[in-house]
Amino acid sequence: MSKKVAVILSGCGVQDGAEIHESVLTLLRLNQRGAEVKCFAPNIAQHHVINHLTGEEMPETRNVLVESARIARGAIEDIREADITEFDALIIPGGFGAAKNLSNFAAEGSSCKVQAEVLAMAEAFAEAGKPIGLICVSPALAAKIYGPGVTCTIGNDPDTAAKITKMGGNHEECDVADIVEDKDRKLVSTPGYMVANSISEAAAGINKLVDRVLELVMEKEEQPST
Amino acid sequence: MSKKVAVILSGCGVQDGAEIHESVLTLLRLNQRGAEVKCFAPNIAQHHVINHLTGEEMPETRNVLVESARIARGAIEDIREADITEFDALIIPGGFGAAKNLSNFAAEGSSCKVQAEVLAMAEAFAEAGKPIGLICVSPALAAKIYGPGVTCTIGNDPDTAAKITKMGGNHEECDVADIVEDKDRKLVSTPGYMVANSISEAAAGINKLVDRVLELVMEKEEQPST
Repeated sequence: MSKKVAVILSGCGVQDGAEIHESVLTLLRLNQRGAEVKCFAPNIAQHHVINHLTGEEMPETRNVLVESARIARGAIEDIREADITEFDALIIPGGFGAAKNLSNFAAEGSSCKVQAEVLAMAEAFAEAGKPIGLICVSPALAAKIYGPGVTCTIGNDPDTAAKITKMGGNHEECDVADIVEDKDRKLVSTPGYMVANSISEAAAGINKLVDRVLELVMEKEEQPST
Repeated sequence: MSKKVAVILSGCGVQDGAEIHESVLTLLRLNQRGAEVKCFAPNIAQHHVINHLTGEEMPETRNVLVESARIARGAIEDIREADITEFDALIIPGGFGAAKNLSNFAAEGSSCKVQAEVLAMAEAFAEAGKPIGLICVSPALAAKIYGPGVTCTIGNDPDTAAKITKMGGNHEECDVADIVEDKDRKLVSTPGYMVANSISEAAAGINKLVDRVLELVMEKEEQPST
């Protein structure tokens, strides 16, 4: 039986949405490993729109779900439609969208809030003991999803790590090609472009994360019911 | 010495720009094979903007270079800045952007014109005997770049193939995981999402195309000067 994995996207572009390479690499590895994937995004306005050529803000508005649909080639649903009982695992790629649209971590740091629907969906996976994979800056949401004591990585950026620690998370430094696993919580994280200098470097860690998330699904199924 | 490859993007999203998966898969394989990559796009307005969730046109304008910068993480230049003597090969991923922004093939079919700067850049590679890789619908531009007699594939769509034939091209049917090569012209093409039902299928053909384009660069270098 193929595993079903939900992927939450946060727009389309590293500066104001989901990091495109990380998102595509996640979809590629999941497909190569035979997983069935459904993409979701919140149907909300983006925090803002950034011109990715100049880095400047653009005077327009875009919708997170509509822009995420570009990465998903239209095969995406409003996160409000998600039935988590259908899925074995959840993965959230990075990009500033995770810190600007899925939460306000970019503006509020350790005082951030996670967008209500995203938080509810992620909490439901966590409470059901279903594995979650968080890539790049997305692990900044971990302490909000799991509460204090959760272990994760965003690589080696001291500022971001300090904010995670302030929220009650245990930050572990991690190489770009590696993952950090919180075994009790079945949370896997990898630094992605928080550390990567190339798309191949990002792919190394993301492949490892996807593989480990799918292994955790298998391990869960092999456990005897009690 | 690492090979230098120029990649022309046509926006960001399959319906009105560069196909995101094909573009990222191209960048991934090039990086994995040690090639140095520079992305380019024409600094022009998109033909239109499509809501990728609904498929409907949106009442706004976007710029091809600015949107392409999302895929390139900002590392992209106006095609007018391209110095083709710096590069060993050129690759153009697909998506409707190739048929709506880099040319008007989507609207005009066999009567299409290629955008002037894109045409000049591609012709310069062709005239210098430098290999070109065209993915998905991009091979529809081949007869305009090379003139009649060029051999290419867009997979197996009879309508699109007939238009290529009408322009003087030789269309060869091709499996998603395979490539068609015009040996005299050093043109390699692969169907990508013209045929692919999954990202892994698209990756198979794109990996083969990138590998062959880089091999052709090596073969060119090994030829004795005459």
